[in-house]
Amino acid sequence: MDTREDLVPGDTGSWRHYGATTLPKALAAALDAFAERGYDGTSIREVASRAGLSVPGLYHHYPSKQALLVSLTTTVMRELLERSRQALAEAGPTPSEQFDAVVESLLRFHMFRRNQAFVASTEMRSMEPASRAAFVALRDEQQRMLDRIVEEGVAAGEFSTRYPEDASRAVTTMCVAVASWYHPDGPLSPDEIVTRYLAIARCTVGAR
Amino acid sequence: MDTREDLVPGDTGSWRHYGATTLPKALAAALDAFAERGYDGTSIREVASRAGLSVPGLYHHYPSKQALLVSLTTTVMRELLERSRQALAEAGPTPSEQFDAVVESLLRFHMFRRNQAFVASTEMRSMEPASRAAFVALRDEQQRMLDRIVEEGVAAGEFSTRYPEDASRAVTTMCVAVASWYHPDGPLSPDEIVTRYLAIARCTVGAR
Repeated sequence: MDTREDLVPGDTGSWRHYGATTLPKALAAALDAFAERGYDGTSIREVASRAGLSVPGLYHHYPSKQALLVSLTTTVMRELLERSRQALAEAGPTPSEQFDAVVESLLRFHMFRRNQAFVASTEMRSMEPASRAAFVALRDEQQRMLDRIVEEGVAAGEFSTRYPEDASRAVTTMCVAVASWYHPDGPLSPDEIVTRYLAIARCTVGAR
Repeated sequence: MDTREDLVPGDTGSWRHYGATTLPKALAAALDAFAERGYDGTSIREVASRAGLSVPGLYHHYPSKQALLVSLTTTVMRELLERSRQALAEAGPTPSEQFDAVVESLLRFHMFRRNQAFVASTEMRSMEPASRAAFVALRDEQQRMLDRIVEEGVAAGEFSTRYPEDASRAVTTMCVAVASWYHPDGPLSPDEIVTRYLAIARCTVGAR
């Protein structure tokens, strides 16, 4: 099952559904290797071996290890953005409803795509300047989506925080951090985590 | 200036003061190398060179690259714990006052020791199991310090969160994340960041 099957534009709620894997096998292999050994600790040979490809076969699609990292991390960020946009499009008109939708999208993504999120955040230092700038631009777009909602919530009197931009960043941070401890076999189900973190995130922005 | 000069037991407020560096030169060199290139991307030779030591000279104090990582990360966590304990010891008796003190300590640490905090969190995967367990135990001790305060705040009616443990973890997370963007030349001073994040953290636990 790939992203296109999970996430169908216009198919209500499909942003909540995650299949087992969404990546081409070379990127899936790079993801596993980077998550286990880090970018610097991973060789192209190891990625090829994990993907069941020859080294020349891998190079045919990805001319360098850097190309694998860039393709992997931008694919990850684009999926998050696409899901969050769909969640927002389906939400009700109030900032409170929109806040809940985008926060839930962030939470589910960081549970079901936790390895991707971990590699993207820890290997930013390994990206060349242009790639890093492109990645940061996507990440900033996701952050601004929530920033706008929090600002509108404050303007509408639905949120009382005195620091909308900082509170919005703090909420993103707490959702992103779920990737560092969530485990499918853990004591809390994804739905229970969404319930708890939505309650906490609403408090953080001073939802009335 | 080293930690002992900055942080004087019984010297009120010394937990707020940070000198330029607190690490022996071998650990300071390992920190810089791990932060720039990652643990797997760093050689012992590079650490020795940055520290102005011979490789045998470095090995005399640290028998392996793993020993450098373990010594560095436990030194970091012990400093955070020591500062947080002092902040707590100096705080007033109410959970609200204690919460403010420990959150402020977490915030200042993650501004002034941001590289240390980054390496400790991203290189957990590079720690051997026993070292990792020892590091996690220290980190959990820091988390439990805040958990207890939040629980006592809820019991005393000072905090209204329905999920004290999750809210406590969310607050730690937002303080830790300051390390990823804070810069001494940035637009906000450490005191201004403390003011904003304390307000947001209080909202997160539902301070009344």
